[in-house]
Amino acid sequence: MTKTINESTAAAMLQAADNILLLAHQYPDGDTLGSNFALCRALQALGKTVRVCCGDPIPDKYNYLYQDVPQPDFSPDFVCAVDVADVKLLGDALAKQYGDKIDLCIDHHGTNTGYAAYTCVDSTCGAAAMVVYRIIGLLGVELSPAIAQCIYTGIATDTGCFKYSNAGALAHRIAADCIEVGIPYEMINRVNFDTKSRARIELERMALDRMRFYHQGRVAVMAITNAMVEESQAGENDLEGLPPIPRQIEGVWVGITLRQKADGNYKISVRTGTHADAAKICAVLGGGGHERAAGCTTQGALEDATATILSAVEQVVPRIVTG
Amino acid sequence: MTKTINESTAAAMLQAADNILLLAHQYPDGDTLGSNFALCRALQALGKTVRVCCGDPIPDKYNYLYQDVPQPDFSPDFVCAVDVADVKLLGDALAKQYGDKIDLCIDHHGTNTGYAAYTCVDSTCGAAAMVVYRIIGLLGVELSPAIAQCIYTGIATDTGCFKYSNAGALAHRIAADCIEVGIPYEMINRVNFDTKSRARIELERMALDRMRFYHQGRVAVMAITNAMVEESQAGENDLEGLPPIPRQIEGVWVGITLRQKADGNYKISVRTGTHADAAKICAVLGGGGHERAAGCTTQGALEDATATILSAVEQVVPRIVTG
Repeated sequence: MTKTINESTAAAMLQAADNILLLAHQYPDGDTLGSNFALCRALQALGKTVRVCCGDPIPDKYNYLYQDVPQPDFSPDFVCAVDVADVKLLGDALAKQYGDKIDLCIDHHGTNTGYAAYTCVDSTCGAAAMVVYRIIGLLGVELSPAIAQCIYTGIATDTGCFKYSNAGALAHRIAADCIEVGIPYEMINRVNFDTKSRARIELERMALDRMRFYHQGRVAVMAITNAMVEESQAGENDLEGLPPIPRQIEGVWVGITLRQKADGNYKISVRTGTHADAAKICAVLGGGGHERAAGCTTQGALEDATATILSAVEQVVPRIVTG
Repeated sequence: MTKTINESTAAAMLQAADNILLLAHQYPDGDTLGSNFALCRALQALGKTVRVCCGDPIPDKYNYLYQDVPQPDFSPDFVCAVDVADVKLLGDALAKQYGDKIDLCIDHHGTNTGYAAYTCVDSTCGAAAMVVYRIIGLLGVELSPAIAQCIYTGIATDTGCFKYSNAGALAHRIAADCIEVGIPYEMINRVNFDTKSRARIELERMALDRMRFYHQGRVAVMAITNAMVEESQAGENDLEGLPPIPRQIEGVWVGITLRQKADGNYKISVRTGTHADAAKICAVLGGGGHERAAGCTTQGALEDATATILSAVEQVVPRIVTG
């Protein structure tokens, strides 16, 4: 059973610790990396021995977050996971090695499973980097440009560059604090939001070619098959951020993305506007999620998967057919 | 010769005026509409008779900015242009009617031509809405949610949802002030950044189909022909925001968009990263602009236009061929 603590207590625990191992989640994103490396830099500024560990390789585009951060080898006396909602999200190897030895977890997920000895969660924050920002302040470490660009990256990437509902006033105020110390925020945003590989462009082109509409354009279905991924030479990173695309089309109530898995079956992502509940649609097929974004899996070929999810949509949102 | 004034003087002039006509620029965008309707609402809150006039129809997506704002008919005693850098940008009809009768211009373009009797420009602001925000404060009008959503819209749309270099600390702080009074910022961002018509999707698909790469992928050329616009049934609004696309592709130094005009010739938009100067490339063909974004026009068919601009690129950036 974890003990819930506030940011002051978390800062005091870190202040008292040394030889600190920080853990990021697998498939690392801008928030888990930004918040971990911001904290790493701050603790190193206090003279502590610290490094960040991630179960997956870090994509090259995040090099600017940590290229000048020493990552010493040592036997940790204190283990702290940042932006990791569930111990499973560390990945198998790290979960096995450290899963039952995590002293502190700093997070912003309301769904945090409480796997650490002490947990400091603020689910009103749009990014873990916002929680870390306050803890760094409590540690008395000055907000350097290097720390600020890690914090800004965490906030910008988790809020879709301030687009989503989690980009509240505090997210903007902390971003402003970071900008004021002098960070290359335009470069950060270009790298994270305005750069696509040629493989990704090719994959999007193929996906748009094969987009199908149903029920007077209220349902849009986009399929990503293994053949398309192979033909476009898209890597795992190129497949991120596809599910919002069908929903962005004007008049679409339900946007569906079908992504073929290695076993040939399809993983389904559902995105909805105010007219339909994505979680209810996916629940029909044993899946789950949120009102506006949910997921499930199906068995069978593309035609079967499409028919199955369309039938779930029609069942949950009958108005989509008749209305 | 215009007289340059600060925001306090501008506020005092508006405070003393009544029967105020506010003018937006043609091809209205979120900033000219947001800043005009924010100021309109504030002046109406002071009991003044005010309306906003725009030379072009306002796209439906901006309805939320003004649907509850009375637009009375009256003979104006005071004319104020907001976010209009040049009198020509009012469009022919409004420029003819009011061009020499504009009492005040409130703007954020450093290139403002000084056509108004008094000009209040702050070119450090990423959006005219930021200047208007401060003037509204000086007028002593409370920031209502209705005013705040106009201000937020102006800032978000002119900064690419806080993505560009003009999204500095002040832009974020004013956005935070707007969010704190309670505005549907998620809806605003969805409408402005995450909604595409089916015609637009179709046009993008065709444009990606025909994207061409040169010089080891360092130059990407995207063409939009009149035939493509017709086939996709794209309207004028669907054509916005296309020029950044080729430049977003990884490894591209120079992204070129060729857009066919009514007369069959091509308008060229050039976007560059740090390796090339877009203004210098376009200057070869008699065009101009900024270091990262510039434009020019050419005569002739698509193949000729492509050859012409590629030759300009090779001349200005020889390293793109050999490097």
